[in-house]
Amino acid sequence: MPQTTTDHARRRDALRAALSRQEPALDALLVTDLDNVRYLAGFTGSNGAVLVAADPDGDAIATDGRYLTQVAEQSGDLRAVIERDVAKALLAQAKAKGAVGFEATALSYADHARLAPEAHLVPTTRLVETLREVKDEGEIELLRRACTISDQALAALVEEGAVRVGATETQVARRLENLMYEFGAEAVAFETIVAAGPNSAIPHHRPTDAVLAAGDFVKIDFGARFQGYHADETRTFVLGEPAAWQREIYDLVRAAQTAGREALVPGADVRAIDGAARAVIEEAGYGEQFLHGLGHGVGVQIHEAPALGKLGSGTLSDGAVVTVEPGVYLPGRGGVRIEDTLVVRADGPELLTRTTKDLIAL
Amino acid sequence: MPQTTTDHARRRDALRAALSRQEPALDALLVTDLDNVRYLAGFTGSNGAVLVAADPDGDAIATDGRYLTQVAEQSGDLRAVIERDVAKALLAQAKAKGAVGFEATALSYADHARLAPEAHLVPTTRLVETLREVKDEGEIELLRRACTISDQALAALVEEGAVRVGATETQVARRLENLMYEFGAEAVAFETIVAAGPNSAIPHHRPTDAVLAAGDFVKIDFGARFQGYHADETRTFVLGEPAAWQREIYDLVRAAQTAGREALVPGADVRAIDGAARAVIEEAGYGEQFLHGLGHGVGVQIHEAPALGKLGSGTLSDGAVVTVEPGVYLPGRGGVRIEDTLVVRADGPELLTRTTKDLIAL
Repeated sequence: MPQTTTDHARRRDALRAALSRQEPALDALLVTDLDNVRYLAGFTGSNGAVLVAADPDGDAIATDGRYLTQVAEQSGDLRAVIERDVAKALLAQAKAKGAVGFEATALSYADHARLAPEAHLVPTTRLVETLREVKDEGEIELLRRACTISDQALAALVEEGAVRVGATETQVARRLENLMYEFGAEAVAFETIVAAGPNSAIPHHRPTDAVLAAGDFVKIDFGARFQGYHADETRTFVLGEPAAWQREIYDLVRAAQTAGREALVPGADVRAIDGAARAVIEEAGYGEQFLHGLGHGVGVQIHEAPALGKLGSGTLSDGAVVTVEPGVYLPGRGGVRIEDTLVVRADGPELLTRTTKDLIAL
Repeated sequence: MPQTTTDHARRRDALRAALSRQEPALDALLVTDLDNVRYLAGFTGSNGAVLVAADPDGDAIATDGRYLTQVAEQSGDLRAVIERDVAKALLAQAKAKGAVGFEATALSYADHARLAPEAHLVPTTRLVETLREVKDEGEIELLRRACTISDQALAALVEEGAVRVGATETQVARRLENLMYEFGAEAVAFETIVAAGPNSAIPHHRPTDAVLAAGDFVKIDFGARFQGYHADETRTFVLGEPAAWQREIYDLVRAAQTAGREALVPGADVRAIDGAARAVIEEAGYGEQFLHGLGHGVGVQIHEAPALGKLGSGTLSDGAVVTVEPGVYLPGRGGVRIEDTLVVRADGPELLTRTTKDLIAL
């Protein structure tokens, strides 16, 4: 279940192949983004960098003395360099070689200026992020676990009656987070959103002391993190019998979410997937009330490639893991969002978040 | 008590004065570090930048459409530019002007390359961070509140008997975090450390399912966040009667911590402050077991300037808020750290974390 050194070595080999395809070819890539360091080497310390070289014998990891034991445990298959200035230490290793790529969005201007005399540095973008877009089965199992914990916690929350008239948004959020820990989360994937009544019309509301009242929509957007992998799930409940307008927009969002899930086909244009769900909402006359993109990739980050939305580009990969989360928000009244995390597969998407999407009246 | 627009305007004026002292003088500074954006404008959204210009009429804030309402509420005294690409939008505002500084450690290489054609950009370092080092009384009150919440939560934890033989580290950590929320924290300042028995010898141990046992040291390093400001506090307890070796290292760390606090004098060299505490531990023969610096600044970040340690430089400012946290760690046996957050003042430091430092046997 934990990622093995074999997984990491395979990823470094895939990156090596990508380096050779660059124009001009790179002799190595200096990886300083910490999520990418973890992805390529399993190392979770707060100071680390990885060098992936055209010649695999040149691969190395660097960290400082605080992580001496940890780097041996997590990245024992890699040569470890123990220096506080991890990037400079790895470039010193690569010195005899030619062009060394660096991650242009992860390295600061100041760090680049400091390191430029050390090597022939070439900016690169999204080399590791592109690999990360397609998950291997080991990663999918970790995502499945994160989603299962999330489902279990939400079920327990509802079961014990915590989503009730008189509770505050903050109380519900806190309780749900505690339940995620009880079911095995190592952390919460992001700050839990609990938004009741008019607040449910705010897409990314932070929980407040607002009290849940009869007739409210209660929108809960949450997720567990498990061994570095994130779940992302939203369900919207109603307190008491749903009013006609509530039933209407709930059914609409649910239909749009179904359309979005059905559009998750390998090779599909990411804007067309967004469009498939959006068309359902637009046809019902609520297009202006669906204010955000349909979804995003999930993995070692809560938001990663691909972006399923009007601003996205490219096509969906087999093995990508994405959210599908349309919403309709009526300012001052309330809003609905329904969100799943799914694996894109040739024979149809695999649903990882399995809580019912029937409208639950509490 | 919330920071007012007057506070933010005063900080921008102080920054403006610093810009005029740069060589060459800067016509404006583009601030992209989000903590600095909050410090200068009160804005807490996830996408924002501030331009502070030599001419105050040139000051502006930029964010995207999601934060239209929020930026008006939080930064109503500043002209707001609503654009997704906040840095580029602000540079367009500054276009007619001369040299525009940017934060070289906050801007990525890629962003700099993208923005370079838009203005005459000049790298700067630590201009806002240097201002942040000296807190105003409004900030100190928020830090006081964060520390009081932390003290109250720890007292309640001990009072209810949660730190007991048979509990796991994770249970204790989770309970303490919940108590911080109950006493008014908006968040935890960092992931709570609860380290029992041999684990207490690991300076930055993550809580595990390890069970607290009779005779264990239990080291708890934690803090609340309140309106963006962080508390940082460590206390070490013992379960049952302390053994002689436990009493010895506890008393030693306490004496070192007292020496460190007494060395907090405006104008003191930061390495000398570290040295004052370290000398106490070295003279007792435990110098090798005090593995980290003595302390650090605390404010809108949990770790900020100044660094009180061998690698620090400069002198302590009147109005700085710092931690003093010596420790002695005996691998395989246990360790002690005692940490306070304090305000540096001419008439002696003001203690913000007020939980007793007597050795408490639980």
